[in-house]
Amino acid sequence: PCAKSLAAVRARDAQLTKPPGALGRLEEIVEWLAAWQGKAEPTIDGPLVAVFAANHGVVAKGVSAFPPSVTQQMLDNFTAGGAAINQICKSFGVGLKVFELALEHPTGDFSEGPAMEENAAAATLAYGMEAIDGGIDLLAPGEMGIGNTTSAAAIYAALYGGPASKWTGRGTGVDDEGLARKNAVIDSALALHGPHLSDPLEILRRLGGREIAGMMGAILAARLNRIPVVLDGFVACSAAALLHAMDENAIAHCIAGHVSPEGGHREVLRRLGKKPLLDLDMRLGEGSGAAMAIGVVKGALACHRGMATFESAGVSGKS
Amino acid sequence: PCAKSLAAVRARDAQLTKPPGALGRLEEIVEWLAAWQGKAEPTIDGPLVAVFAANHGVVAKGVSAFPPSVTQQMLDNFTAGGAAINQICKSFGVGLKVFELALEHPTGDFSEGPAMEENAAAATLAYGMEAIDGGIDLLAPGEMGIGNTTSAAAIYAALYGGPASKWTGRGTGVDDEGLARKNAVIDSALALHGPHLSDPLEILRRLGGREIAGMMGAILAARLNRIPVVLDGFVACSAAALLHAMDENAIAHCIAGHVSPEGGHREVLRRLGKKPLLDLDMRLGEGSGAAMAIGVVKGALACHRGMATFESAGVSGKS
Repeated sequence: PCAKSLAAVRARDAQLTKPPGALGRLEEIVEWLAAWQGKAEPTIDGPLVAVFAANHGVVAKGVSAFPPSVTQQMLDNFTAGGAAINQICKSFGVGLKVFELALEHPTGDFSEGPAMEENAAAATLAYGMEAIDGGIDLLAPGEMGIGNTTSAAAIYAALYGGPASKWTGRGTGVDDEGLARKNAVIDSALALHGPHLSDPLEILRRLGGREIAGMMGAILAARLNRIPVVLDGFVACSAAALLHAMDENAIAHCIAGHVSPEGGHREVLRRLGKKPLLDLDMRLGEGSGAAMAIGVVKGALACHRGMATFESAGVSGKS
Repeated sequence: PCAKSLAAVRARDAQLTKPPGALGRLEEIVEWLAAWQGKAEPTIDGPLVAVFAANHGVVAKGVSAFPPSVTQQMLDNFTAGGAAINQICKSFGVGLKVFELALEHPTGDFSEGPAMEENAAAATLAYGMEAIDGGIDLLAPGEMGIGNTTSAAAIYAALYGGPASKWTGRGTGVDDEGLARKNAVIDSALALHGPHLSDPLEILRRLGGREIAGMMGAILAARLNRIPVVLDGFVACSAAALLHAMDENAIAHCIAGHVSPEGGHREVLRRLGKKPLLDLDMRLGEGSGAAMAIGVVKGALACHRGMATFESAGVSGKS
């Protein structure tokens, strides 16, 4: 983070026509933007939601309420502008790009073997780094992939300890039997891969999905290119959690856009040390919670940039 | 609330390309808009922040960190577009109107006698009802008035029981001595007016301010004209609390835009039965928290109106 830019926005904030601290977390948001962009005058000229989409072999085990064909169908829906994420991005002037990750080649069923080969995981992570191309200055990685809450829950169980039921939720809406299957599948996968789950990259390869690898790449590339990141919900945070397990500082440029009621998301954010901006019971994925939070971030920056100072407005200071 | 419009948006929501309930409170927001507007297709074509401004005799007792001249200076700042509320309204396409309530005639010091004459309180309440003129379809009443957190805290203490310190906060930033003065002034006012504080309208007249009366009128007029209301923070909610004390149903059309760290605001919302949309430590007033929440409301409606259905997008339903 850039101390000089941080000091600059703090100095300006102190002159704005409001009592000190009265904008609360909106002030913190502007400081975060300035520090990570390295700009005394932070910008949101090119905010982007980057949605990574992939399919998961583990859906064969009956862990999702929807068939895997929905991943491609929802991608077509994104392209046609009909999904929730399209509407939210349009509302707040946020760009949207979809990264399709070989949907016709689902990852392996991680309850029977590793989800990915080493080179595939590495290549997808590298591909994810391209999400920041094109002069963007604020990034929210999102995802679409039937079955991916199962993969994310498995990652949390591997990182933070099981059993699966501590981390899982109903995803797109499995019933009690489906949830029991989901837990059993994850628990058996943890037993199968157990000895190999001490390394976050190995957790990604064995239990993860292509969209999770892609989001890891995007978050890393943003870190290296001074682009602040708004984290989405349960699945997107599994990418952040893997990076965090490798190096706590790797996600220091990330803010939690929202907390989801899905599974252990609130506990994950606690472990990541992130306080969410929004708590609206959203559990859709697609980057939708992060995109809503970008609305808040834009409002915060608008205040900082547009407000008059006590001097320019002729407003008296404290008596 | 209109049951038919509510049923209509629920029926549409069930067809949208997302798992049921996945948009969480965004779905609840759309239901609230539909039910109170009485529209099967709710609108936010004319959202308005109506800021009521007034001055308070009680500032003579040293209860504010800023001099009373700041009320007029901030109004000039609103007109020039330099305040926080201007930037937030601009960010989310929300209209802004300022209602100036005889700033050169502050209310009486309520620690020495009633703040207002009966006819003045009634006239201001009636004037506040004009806030809804001009075809607006979503209203957020806001306020500006040096000293008004003292008035609002006194109202809460009168409605819900004292001592003052249970309800007060530092407002624009009084120090420990100022806060002690504020508490003492309110406690002595409660003792002075005690026998007359069983009637909410009498509480308004004796302890209130013109901006609080104006906001009450605005909220009431909205109720009668099918305009949903987004409540702002500590001071704005004192108007809602007075109405609620008269008739619980009088604020059924209101949603809590945010919760402020000022004084007992969180407890006030609990008593009003309102769960805030945002919790961002904002404590500025001006309608700023409510205006940020209108951003969320607009995002929610955009999803409902713009999303494709499973059928139109060719997306498969549950397996």
